[in-house]
Amino acid sequence: MRIVLDAMGGDFAPKNQVEGAVMAARNNSDLQLTLIGQLEKIEPILAQHNTTGLNITLVDAPEVIDMHDSGATAVKSKPNSSIVRGLSMCKEGAADAFVSQGNTGAVMAASLLILGRVEGVQRPCIGAYFPSLKNQVMVFDTGANLDSKPEQLVQFAEMATIFERYMLGVQTPTVGLLNVGEEETKGNDTLKQTHKLLRDADARGQIKFIGNIEGRDVFIGDTNIVLCDGLIGNVVLKLGESIPNIVGTLIMHALNKRVADGKLAPDSAKQFSGILKEIFHGFSDEPHGGVPLLGVNGISIIGHGNSSPVAVMNAIFAAKNMFEKRVNDHIAEMLKADEVKN
Amino acid sequence: MRIVLDAMGGDFAPKNQVEGAVMAARNNSDLQLTLIGQLEKIEPILAQHNTTGLNITLVDAPEVIDMHDSGATAVKSKPNSSIVRGLSMCKEGAADAFVSQGNTGAVMAASLLILGRVEGVQRPCIGAYFPSLKNQVMVFDTGANLDSKPEQLVQFAEMATIFERYMLGVQTPTVGLLNVGEEETKGNDTLKQTHKLLRDADARGQIKFIGNIEGRDVFIGDTNIVLCDGLIGNVVLKLGESIPNIVGTLIMHALNKRVADGKLAPDSAKQFSGILKEIFHGFSDEPHGGVPLLGVNGISIIGHGNSSPVAVMNAIFAAKNMFEKRVNDHIAEMLKADEVKN
Repeated sequence: MRIVLDAMGGDFAPKNQVEGAVMAARNNSDLQLTLIGQLEKIEPILAQHNTTGLNITLVDAPEVIDMHDSGATAVKSKPNSSIVRGLSMCKEGAADAFVSQGNTGAVMAASLLILGRVEGVQRPCIGAYFPSLKNQVMVFDTGANLDSKPEQLVQFAEMATIFERYMLGVQTPTVGLLNVGEEETKGNDTLKQTHKLLRDADARGQIKFIGNIEGRDVFIGDTNIVLCDGLIGNVVLKLGESIPNIVGTLIMHALNKRVADGKLAPDSAKQFSGILKEIFHGFSDEPHGGVPLLGVNGISIIGHGNSSPVAVMNAIFAAKNMFEKRVNDHIAEMLKADEVKN
Repeated sequence: MRIVLDAMGGDFAPKNQVEGAVMAARNNSDLQLTLIGQLEKIEPILAQHNTTGLNITLVDAPEVIDMHDSGATAVKSKPNSSIVRGLSMCKEGAADAFVSQGNTGAVMAASLLILGRVEGVQRPCIGAYFPSLKNQVMVFDTGANLDSKPEQLVQFAEMATIFERYMLGVQTPTVGLLNVGEEETKGNDTLKQTHKLLRDADARGQIKFIGNIEGRDVFIGDTNIVLCDGLIGNVVLKLGESIPNIVGTLIMHALNKRVADGKLAPDSAKQFSGILKEIFHGFSDEPHGGVPLLGVNGISIIGHGNSSPVAVMNAIFAAKNMFEKRVNDHIAEMLKADEVKN
């Protein structure tokens, strides 16, 4: 299995990318890894690692799409960037998957433009893992689309169902529609119509729809898939990511004040702060590494810009998993079935 | 100043409502309070309090709009409910303000229907207080509208500015537009157009617009007013409200495990849990009690269903404050100014 890693994407690129690739190659000798990017920046870092016996090759891509570039525009103006060249390698059959922690908008735009869509897919979508009190929760869509139509939202639910079934082993993931209330009459016209179509899709056996859910349900975890438009999903994702910092800061402030007032032993404060770190690790995306842009005709895994080497390694493994589980084939089958039943 | 309190609205009605009214009347002898609702339920509870010298009267309203009633429908089907009768008293000049912790949808629908709109207002909106690391943050709109147009969102920003200036004493509150990225090119057509109109309103001196903000900025508090459509605002509000329970449960679970493993003294766990409670009190709406439905031609304060007696008292004080500060007059003036400048 041949994976191309964008060595230039991410807040700590190419350092964390090279390190993550080396870790992945060491852990998995079947992988053929290609690091793509500016060779003069990649080579010195790779030279710091012992790569004897590892299947890692380099491909030059002189241009860099950075975080300030506008997604779709950059794809056209920088054809020799790691993102465009890496995805083109997949399109041309020179690689099986692309992994990037770079400019999400650019990776999404380039993936759609270069790889095209799986047959039957109207719009690709992207998800995010959320910590919760019960089940593993994922929110779809977290920003691939900002004005989704009801039929598109239903497809997101179907693709997310396939993703969870084959990638996470959740045979029948439950889908909840994020809304302002639980009753089916709640929401704007798009949400009401989506609710109806989701019930239909459930009746056809495509998905398991549990109805509307509210903002307070996201972190509870009674539902596996939280379905929403990418505008709401993106706001919810970023708000969720900010919780460890916000709550951690508030708690540390209170602890430090008590220590200063002589009301709390410094050792106790230290112990609490250790417990906090452990809990907030559950908010990190390191264990998952990245998520695929679902619905594109190929494998494009998108990771967080601040990915650690472990996160980069796990994003590579996510690509491998998606390839081996033939997720795109299953998506095509599900959408085909939908067409027939509809 | 004459305030009508919906004694039937809220998870603990009429108990907390009666108790909150008694507390408010004791604290403020200028208030003429009217409790409206089913007298046979209110009277026995009021009898438990010493009301000597307090200015509290009762008005009968035999019907009750409960949490399962659909907002607009209930307003028409239950004309003798506390919500409809209480707001009608305001409309008829028999009272200056209405306060309810009942069915939010019904109170909003009835307020708009019965009180009408302040001159110039296209749509009313409602806000919510958020805890943050820096400034007091309020999110507008948190659910009065689910498909707001750009011009309506600009009016929400203007009404929110007036609210913060006169009710909270923040002379020039900053407005941030909740979006998927900071650049002005981000978002769907509605958000892009809203961004442009907000810049114009800033140039006219109507508001202080600081640009787009993201989900992660809400709890940081660099902006006073987080502006968004009610669909997003409602999701964000309920998700925010769930944080104390979610994070608290995760932390308590970790603490209990360490105590069970002999790694943490029970006293330390108790101390930490006390600190947590203190911090999460900042997430409670008790200090504010309630928020007005901004833009209706009268005063309608909406509180949380689970309001404590203190929250009920503070909602009554919010009504008093809004009356004394002539918030609606200032809203009319601002919108008038906008019309002239536009």
